[in-house]
Amino acid sequence: MPLSLFNDVNRLVQLSARSHRARQLCQLVETDESRRLMEGIVTSSVNYVPLTPISFLERATNVFYDRTSVVFGSSVRYTWEETHSRCLKLASALVQLGISRGDVVAILAPNVPAMQELHFAVPMAEAVLCTLNTRLDSSMIADLLKHSEAKIIFVDQKLFQIVQGALNLLSKDKTIKRPILVLIPESENSSPPINETYDIYEYETLLASGSSNFTIRWPKAELDPISINYTSGTTSSPKGVVYSHRGAYLNAIAIFLGHGMGPMSTYLWTLPMFHCNGWCLIWGMAALGGTNICLRHVTAKHIFESISLHNVTHMSAVPTVLNMIANSPPNERNPLPHKVEIMTGGSPPPTQILSKMEQLGFGVSHGYGLTETYSAATSCLWKPEWDSLPLEERATIKARQGVQHLCVEKVDVRDPETMEKVPADGKTIGEIVCRGNTVMSGYLKDAKATEEAFKGGWFHTGDLAVKYPNGYIEIKDRLKDIIVSGGENISTLNVESVLYSHPAVIEAAVVARPDDHWGQTPCAFVKLKEGFEEITSHEIIKFCRDHLPHYMAPRTVLFEDLPKTSTGKVQKFILREKAKALGSLFNAEREVQ
Amino acid sequence: MPLSLFNDVNRLVQLSARSHRARQLCQLVETDESRRLMEGIVTSSVNYVPLTPISFLERATNVFYDRTSVVFGSSVRYTWEETHSRCLKLASALVQLGISRGDVVAILAPNVPAMQELHFAVPMAEAVLCTLNTRLDSSMIADLLKHSEAKIIFVDQKLFQIVQGALNLLSKDKTIKRPILVLIPESENSSPPINETYDIYEYETLLASGSSNFTIRWPKAELDPISINYTSGTTSSPKGVVYSHRGAYLNAIAIFLGHGMGPMSTYLWTLPMFHCNGWCLIWGMAALGGTNICLRHVTAKHIFESISLHNVTHMSAVPTVLNMIANSPPNERNPLPHKVEIMTGGSPPPTQILSKMEQLGFGVSHGYGLTETYSAATSCLWKPEWDSLPLEERATIKARQGVQHLCVEKVDVRDPETMEKVPADGKTIGEIVCRGNTVMSGYLKDAKATEEAFKGGWFHTGDLAVKYPNGYIEIKDRLKDIIVSGGENISTLNVESVLYSHPAVIEAAVVARPDDHWGQTPCAFVKLKEGFEEITSHEIIKFCRDHLPHYMAPRTVLFEDLPKTSTGKVQKFILREKAKALGSLFNAEREVQ
Repeated sequence: MPLSLFNDVNRLVQLSARSHRARQLCQLVETDESRRLMEGIVTSSVNYVPLTPISFLERATNVFYDRTSVVFGSSVRYTWEETHSRCLKLASALVQLGISRGDVVAILAPNVPAMQELHFAVPMAEAVLCTLNTRLDSSMIADLLKHSEAKIIFVDQKLFQIVQGALNLLSKDKTIKRPILVLIPESENSSPPINETYDIYEYETLLASGSSNFTIRWPKAELDPISINYTSGTTSSPKGVVYSHRGAYLNAIAIFLGHGMGPMSTYLWTLPMFHCNGWCLIWGMAALGGTNICLRHVTAKHIFESISLHNVTHMSAVPTVLNMIANSPPNERNPLPHKVEIMTGGSPPPTQILSKMEQLGFGVSHGYGLTETYSAATSCLWKPEWDSLPLEERATIKARQGVQHLCVEKVDVRDPETMEKVPADGKTIGEIVCRGNTVMSGYLKDAKATEEAFKGGWFHTGDLAVKYPNGYIEIKDRLKDIIVSGGENISTLNVESVLYSHPAVIEAAVVARPDDHWGQTPCAFVKLKEGFEEITSHEIIKFCRDHLPHYMAPRTVLFEDLPKTSTGKVQKFILREKAKALGSLFNAEREVQ
Repeated sequence: MPLSLFNDVNRLVQLSARSHRARQLCQLVETDESRRLMEGIVTSSVNYVPLTPISFLERATNVFYDRTSVVFGSSVRYTWEETHSRCLKLASALVQLGISRGDVVAILAPNVPAMQELHFAVPMAEAVLCTLNTRLDSSMIADLLKHSEAKIIFVDQKLFQIVQGALNLLSKDKTIKRPILVLIPESENSSPPINETYDIYEYETLLASGSSNFTIRWPKAELDPISINYTSGTTSSPKGVVYSHRGAYLNAIAIFLGHGMGPMSTYLWTLPMFHCNGWCLIWGMAALGGTNICLRHVTAKHIFESISLHNVTHMSAVPTVLNMIANSPPNERNPLPHKVEIMTGGSPPPTQILSKMEQLGFGVSHGYGLTETYSAATSCLWKPEWDSLPLEERATIKARQGVQHLCVEKVDVRDPETMEKVPADGKTIGEIVCRGNTVMSGYLKDAKATEEAFKGGWFHTGDLAVKYPNGYIEIKDRLKDIIVSGGENISTLNVESVLYSHPAVIEAAVVARPDDHWGQTPCAFVKLKEGFEEITSHEIIKFCRDHLPHYMAPRTVLFEDLPKTSTGKVQKFILREKAKALGSLFNAEREVQ
């Protein structure tokens, strides 16, 4: 490269304090250098296309045009050609509504076809999709609409009241421009609610107003944002996790590979599509030219019926859905037409559930990830030699979070402070960290939290785990949950599992209570079963001491209902605050004595 | 972005005449813009890693460390951990030999483990791998070593004489630095040849001199070159096709997906590894943690033995190998342990061969691509509803080149001049064009040829095809081979197939002869079977006129051996020159009359 140009790039690098831009420019200089080495090579639109899941849909309409893209109830069934045409119209309609590059479009809906269509139409309009958790209340939805600055909110008729409540809350702040409201009716015949305060667009009418000749607005760069996923927040307030086109493309591939899905698979949606963009499988299904089976109501009966009716090959399920299937009454079950593969995540499948699912004809595999890693980053990749092991041993292996997916660069267990690897001995606890192209772009408007999450050159999951000699990892606790008492680590998961084995306990959570002498001691919050209200904290503590090393047993037990997130996870940060207040009281008293 | 910086970028764009750099900088500006929209997002080594197949090997050693990576004969068997360690040592040894960023390392070898190891070790040293066609002669090898400026040449003992000949030729030019010679011995016990002129390194000794603690030199940018593949040249002199790390990563995934390969597949190498880096599957097998079965001698007996012995699941085969298997004597066959999937390319599998292969228990699929598209860009993706069709119909469908692979952005059939799409009627002929991340970076040191190949925003394959209403394409001819006579297109493939049906013809090739009146007329070059030497050109022409429209029949027939490339393809450009000379003679004579 001419020296003058090089100097110019250098100046530019200096002008930019942000390391990112410097890196990109360095890369540019480097690529240029290699181009000099390799005379004759070029980068152009012929051999460089930004990676984006939009390409999956474009290919699907060419290759799988007449195959079924989506089935919803008995009335909706579209081919990939129809889905493609509908997405183009919807993108066109979004642009007509004033949506432009980088604008946020929100949706609050169960797994309806509109959800699939918006996953393509919004990026096609160069906008960013924000899928909202259907269990949130109006106040939370209002906060997220405000935080994301959503320009449009699509809402399923069933959840209309919640969004209406949120919009009413937003109206009180005159500085906020109210998002445009689009209603997704429950069925073709249902009439939209009458509203005197706002104009409401109707989904099909809006879509019909668009043109299928719309020219796709391809992302200018593959690192452009494609979606925002708010985390449900077991540890703090919700954060907006930003995904890029590149990350979405690569993770979609990694997920369907990790799930053993091939072309033209049929996938039953029991996993909420709002969750990590359906583990990126909404996009992945277009890559496979597969068929999406959508359910409005996830029940065992509907699951078994759909499997038989549509020849379902794959599904994903949170532990609740696994339980629902395994414990379903026999009259709600149909025999499976073939083995159905289920990927589960969230917590490991218990032996009993695993056994029952296998008897019913399902194959269960186990993955692990966070919203920040575009859903699963690892899976317990099954080796053929494990097939012949007894059930208990298979369940023990399957409970592990496993090994990194294909497009994750590296998943490791490391000391969160020194970033040193822990020995792969199945004992030493460290934090699960990872890096690669399927780690989020960052937290929306929270550079500090992003920086914190990326410190030391790794994404910190906050999950504590061990690594086995074969490289498979297993979670032991959340980093924030671990208790260090007298220098010894106490896994709250261990203490909780003892509490759960007590016949009077229906729910339990253990957190650290600050202690001037021990540093921390375990503090248990327990909800008792009905009819066991007379149990005392001493009895619980004694029970724990009988089943655990003394130092691991709780020193404090409080009986109360546990605070939970909208997705049913215990909010330990609230309990931790309580334990902290309690610790201060005890410590102060000790000082007085 | 601050205006001053924007102006600076603008100046930089102006400074750079090359459109590529301008585009990259524009992209940078755009990304920056989106970053402003999405406050809190960053690009760092935590969430951005250049795509490279080296990552596949790194993951394989973590996830599949104890599984077999490669088997060669009865003496060589390495696990992925061993392969990883050997590649690190080899990369370290390359650096010790002075190899640095962008240097070219060449290899001339059959499918031996060293071939696999160099596919990772060379990129790990930030160098570029050049795999040479094992059928080339010393003179051609000398030309390619000179053109690629290879710093090292690895050679299998069996091919040593050819390389020695090439180095002797190079020695005559004092301006050329002779590449370092590394010999890959045929077996552990074979002694390297004695050579008085040059020092010769021995492969295992060299590898042992490296350190397995070598720090991988990751590509600075994913568009950095990873390999050079010289095309065998049916139309002109060989060109050095440059692949990038990004393209190799994406095509490896597309190929194993297109081939229906899952984790831990076992792949039998009958396809030469030098060919498009083994269709990028040398890298892909690391992504799958699969097992590579290498053969020194590709015979039906060895193929059947290997399948039984190693439980082979997949293989690729050029038509010659398909023929070899289908026509093998029964005593050389073993019953297959399960269905073995074969991907074939080069030319469509004939009905008879397809039928035979199916009887033997193979599944045959058909792909299409060029060296310039990192091997296959399309495959005849099989729809389940075609399973029940009669053999003839299935063979007709399987003969089609099919539809684009996952990571190809677009494959289309277009008018090569106007770039308009041809109608998908199965009749109208156009050129196959494509674009996407798996199109080459360009021809080494031949910017003009690169520009020509990329004209109009598409990579021009030079293959003429039709597109069926279902989007599947089928090749009709090479663009340079089509004959336009009196304004009518004549497919040389059609004329050749009639010539082949004549009982006296063993080989035939048809090219255009320039003609002042008709523009072009068909000119046939024919090799006769033994004992048919008395056949006249009139007889051949009459036969063609009986079986073809009059204007399609050759007007000139010449009897001679056909010139061929090292891979056995007819070199039509030589025949075209002859036909051109002949045309001039005829036209001159016509003018005189």
